[in-house]
Amino acid sequence: MARQPIKFGILGCADIARKFSRAINLSPNSTLYAVGSRSLEKAAKFAKENGFPESAKVYGSYDAVLDDPDVDAVYLPLPTSLHVKWAVLAAQKKKHLLLEKPVALNVKELDLILEACESSGVQFMDATMWMHHPRTAAMKDFLSNSELFGELKSVISCFTFAANQDFLENDIRVRPDLDAHGALGDAGWYCIRSILWASNFELPKTVLALRGPVFNKAGVILACSASLYWEDGKVATFHCSFLANLTMDVTVVGTNGTLHLHDFVIPFEENKASFSVATKSGFTELVTGWEPKPSEHHVTTGLPQEALLVREFSRLVGSIKFDGSKPEIKWPTLSRKTQQVLDAVKLSIEGGFETIEV
Amino acid sequence: MARQPIKFGILGCADIARKFSRAINLSPNSTLYAVGSRSLEKAAKFAKENGFPESAKVYGSYDAVLDDPDVDAVYLPLPTSLHVKWAVLAAQKKKHLLLEKPVALNVKELDLILEACESSGVQFMDATMWMHHPRTAAMKDFLSNSELFGELKSVISCFTFAANQDFLENDIRVRPDLDAHGALGDAGWYCIRSILWASNFELPKTVLALRGPVFNKAGVILACSASLYWEDGKVATFHCSFLANLTMDVTVVGTNGTLHLHDFVIPFEENKASFSVATKSGFTELVTGWEPKPSEHHVTTGLPQEALLVREFSRLVGSIKFDGSKPEIKWPTLSRKTQQVLDAVKLSIEGGFETIEV
Repeated sequence: MARQPIKFGILGCADIARKFSRAINLSPNSTLYAVGSRSLEKAAKFAKENGFPESAKVYGSYDAVLDDPDVDAVYLPLPTSLHVKWAVLAAQKKKHLLLEKPVALNVKELDLILEACESSGVQFMDATMWMHHPRTAAMKDFLSNSELFGELKSVISCFTFAANQDFLENDIRVRPDLDAHGALGDAGWYCIRSILWASNFELPKTVLALRGPVFNKAGVILACSASLYWEDGKVATFHCSFLANLTMDVTVVGTNGTLHLHDFVIPFEENKASFSVATKSGFTELVTGWEPKPSEHHVTTGLPQEALLVREFSRLVGSIKFDGSKPEIKWPTLSRKTQQVLDAVKLSIEGGFETIEV
Repeated sequence: MARQPIKFGILGCADIARKFSRAINLSPNSTLYAVGSRSLEKAAKFAKENGFPESAKVYGSYDAVLDDPDVDAVYLPLPTSLHVKWAVLAAQKKKHLLLEKPVALNVKELDLILEACESSGVQFMDATMWMHHPRTAAMKDFLSNSELFGELKSVISCFTFAANQDFLENDIRVRPDLDAHGALGDAGWYCIRSILWASNFELPKTVLALRGPVFNKAGVILACSASLYWEDGKVATFHCSFLANLTMDVTVVGTNGTLHLHDFVIPFEENKASFSVATKSGFTELVTGWEPKPSEHHVTTGLPQEALLVREFSRLVGSIKFDGSKPEIKWPTLSRKTQQVLDAVKLSIEGGFETIEV
């Protein structure tokens, strides 16, 4: 079979789907093939405005996309509460699944999705874009270097942004029937992922939400913090919020080294990203300065991180489709661990800030 | 009375006293006048190696320094457990008091010191040097700007350093009879101070130590974390440790702005220090970059921060000595608030991670 680009169908016309449409177009092994919305008119408008080819299929329902036999993979950016229904259906229809985060309302729902994917032999991946930036690999090289970084001791992650009034009143991320986890599911997902990433995806033993989360009137989290604990003494904290200026920090501290970055989810610039590292930092004589000082590293990328994500996803889908490979289990595994910690944080908040075993 | 430089006596020959001797020499309104040690030989060696003038007095006891009528002020870098005895005595002998941090084992002891200072009409100041760097004032301008920074939402502070084996076995900061608060009293003091500084020294309502502190065999804290809560919803966390690479972060997030710095206690360089600010940060269309991006600010200083501290302290002492002014109560007030929070963290740790009202 000729190695054709992977044909994507998009379910829904969410804002984030515009960014992913561009990414699918930019990725050399992928093509925009179909879009479905509950409104045919909306789907047509979306296709027209987002670089779909003339030949693209425009559907007035999500089902129609899933029923199109030529669609290889679907990108599913619907509200979280709809994930289990549509993701399971997509998998059952043998569509490879690129699922927006947070992937599910809880691990139980996610497991239904993952079981459906496994049973259909389709690839699952969540849409955590920064995982695919070459900076992430460069930072991991540093963290994996026992001389330069040493043993991991603590991770601090913070992702906040200042949602405007319209967002705080109407966005799906503040509605309990749509994205019930609010800031924890949105910004917090990334914080949790960054902590797990830094700790080589070793799950913490326990999770404890910090006091003082902020809720809206419907009980959706607008800001919260949590701490994570491992048996070997590693600790991590994160803070996520819809109520403070855009901030995206990850700080990873080891016995020998320190990593800093301030734009971990969305790099400041599309084609160049930086991070700062320090190794065996000390002071000058009389402690009047640092020696050595931290150093800044720059990583360039020809494709933006979301296109690299699509390219990797399509590569895996292509291997399955053309070479008979098995799905790569790394990606569903990472999603599931992230969801497990998210569930534990939620449970800790709901239970009055009790320690939760993960 | 001619406005002569303030004459300093130093009690003990601690390592940090070398840095302060240089600072006293650098500060135009101060002079190194005397040093006392339990060993006369050690005091003489210290004076010789640290820029004391030929005329400087070298004493074989702390008492002798305090009994010298020409000593205006003492710098007291002794282990914390000795502070209350020597600081009270110094104040009773009418010596102005520059006291190393942590200022006392607890607020009760600190109050004995502060009462002695007040009763003698002498100036009290703790040796938290970064408070006096012009960068600190520049950052405060940003945090005070309601347009650029808005309302404070969260503070994250982290100060760790990798103590070597000798430190971990022998330093006064790991000995329960000397600096009983370990990493909390040393690195944690600065974290707490930075959080209070960012919140305009409004005390938190409650403090909760996080789980997982590390202790040495003698029960001294080698690493710990805590969270602070204010009634208006502000939250702060800090992490301090002797067991991880040198890291010195403060992140302050407000509704409109964000402040970052990575060398808050000791700037990377002596004469130039930086910080990063961001205001109303947002994304480019399609969320592929930041607009506006954070900006870096540089502050130069002719005198290092410790000399600026000495200069300010000596200015206040001079006002009292030459102009009949009253001591500035700002400085003891800040020390006391820092100690109050430190005590609360310690109590929370000792009480099994219970919430402590401050």
